[in-house]
Amino acid sequence: MRDLSTDHSSLALNTASLGHNLDGHGAGWSPERIVDACAARGFGSIVFWRREIGSRAVEIGERVKAAGLSVAGLCRTPFLVGTEATNRHTVIDGAKASIDMAAGLGAAVLTIVVGGVHPDMKGTSESLKIVADRAAEIAPYAAERNVRLALEPLNPVYAGNRSCLTTLRDAVDICEAIGATNLGVAVDVYHIWWDSDLDAQLQRAGNRIFGYHLCDWLADTHDVLLDRGMMGDGVADLKAIRAGVEGAGYAGPCEVEIFSANNWWKRDPGEVLDVMVERFRTLC
Amino acid sequence: MRDLSTDHSSLALNTASLGHNLDGHGAGWSPERIVDACAARGFGSIVFWRREIGSRAVEIGERVKAAGLSVAGLCRTPFLVGTEATNRHTVIDGAKASIDMAAGLGAAVLTIVVGGVHPDMKGTSESLKIVADRAAEIAPYAAERNVRLALEPLNPVYAGNRSCLTTLRDAVDICEAIGATNLGVAVDVYHIWWDSDLDAQLQRAGNRIFGYHLCDWLADTHDVLLDRGMMGDGVADLKAIRAGVEGAGYAGPCEVEIFSANNWWKRDPGEVLDVMVERFRTLC
Repeated sequence: MRDLSTDHSSLALNTASLGHNLDGHGAGWSPERIVDACAARGFGSIVFWRREIGSRAVEIGERVKAAGLSVAGLCRTPFLVGTEATNRHTVIDGAKASIDMAAGLGAAVLTIVVGGVHPDMKGTSESLKIVADRAAEIAPYAAERNVRLALEPLNPVYAGNRSCLTTLRDAVDICEAIGATNLGVAVDVYHIWWDSDLDAQLQRAGNRIFGYHLCDWLADTHDVLLDRGMMGDGVADLKAIRAGVEGAGYAGPCEVEIFSANNWWKRDPGEVLDVMVERFRTLC
Repeated sequence: MRDLSTDHSSLALNTASLGHNLDGHGAGWSPERIVDACAARGFGSIVFWRREIGSRAVEIGERVKAAGLSVAGLCRTPFLVGTEATNRHTVIDGAKASIDMAAGLGAAVLTIVVGGVHPDMKGTSESLKIVADRAAEIAPYAAERNVRLALEPLNPVYAGNRSCLTTLRDAVDICEAIGATNLGVAVDVYHIWWDSDLDAQLQRAGNRIFGYHLCDWLADTHDVLLDRGMMGDGVADLKAIRAGVEGAGYAGPCEVEIFSANNWWKRDPGEVLDVMVERFRTLC
């Protein structure tokens, strides 16, 4: 395992941790200000959301590089399946547009949150077939633009309306079935910390692990969307999970992604970044 | 698979579906009134909660039998692990008291919801060892009183504070490790509907399946505790799950357990029971 206490260059900020600076959350920092604040604290990379980028992908990507950082990723494709993703052409076009943005930004990885159960279906299995079908269609388009795609299984609590993909096992199954070298998985502590099958699936995933996302699961989570914990404040076994991830061969960024409407989003972003560095070096 | 349209004697009411008649929820029906209402509609059995029974276990059990029904189960042991279950003696004594109540009531099964992560631990694996240790200790006590114990894995959203046991796989692992013939599992649609590994684990469970719980997972669940759906209103593949459960050999009660503060708990209990029968016969 890497020693984070002596080198935190693998630390990446997912801008969601600062409240997206949108929708009334966060302090309203511009991407440029975030870049400078991360550079000043020794972060190695940043992950942005599409809404923050708009038409400025190339400009922001260059700004990040000029500051000595890299763009670890972009969140995310539109849903591939679910109630808002029933039209195949719209879905594919939207996914391609997000791939274009990732390419312009120079993002190493574009995350895929797959969407919930198709409105005419029951259970997750048939909807997962649609996911696989559409992921297979967009993977070559992404490969031509040098973009890697990471399927992210979400906590089963979201299976109805956000992600019929709930386990790393299912995500690896899809990757293996498609076989595209630029299609892998994102492993997010919030979504998989409870899974006793995790280590076996991480081993299966191997070099298909394209991202590792950090936060903590608060024992008494009040809101499954916007009450994530800072590392150390919850019950996830962060060191054991990272041991599994790195044991499978992963050596990429560790991306802190904390949705926290009533705690971290209300604090000064500089303070949040300071705490993040400290917790990362000592508890992850 | 059993044909429910011609015979719904396998239908069981979990009284939680009527709001427990406590805490300001529900219409305040007594256990006796519930028994009569279920008998009138052809339910085969009832599952009570400890709080409804108090010191009247034998009396209520006999009342159920006199009405031609049986007591399918009792909810539930106190947590075996977690922040409120750190004292081993208190936990074991509490579990034994609930076993005594189940025996007095003539309940076929006592459900075990295991509790969340131990306050000094991270992740679920160490806490699950405590669960296994304590389940092994109470199983012989239950066997002497002719009570079967059903470990119920809960949806991973509860892993922090209600159930570090989240998958049928882990539940069967514990049963196999302990090897007590009166220790099995409860399969609840709400908790396992998303699991693509379900059929394989049901096969492993086989005759250790001691209970099957019905409701539905609403695609847009607003509250993970008190917003369960009536069968047919959600996205769970109820017929496929029952096919797996019965394919593994289960032929016992199908217990409807719907926590629904803002919908079903606000309706007349008679109406709720009528809808339940109709949905059970046609959609489950």
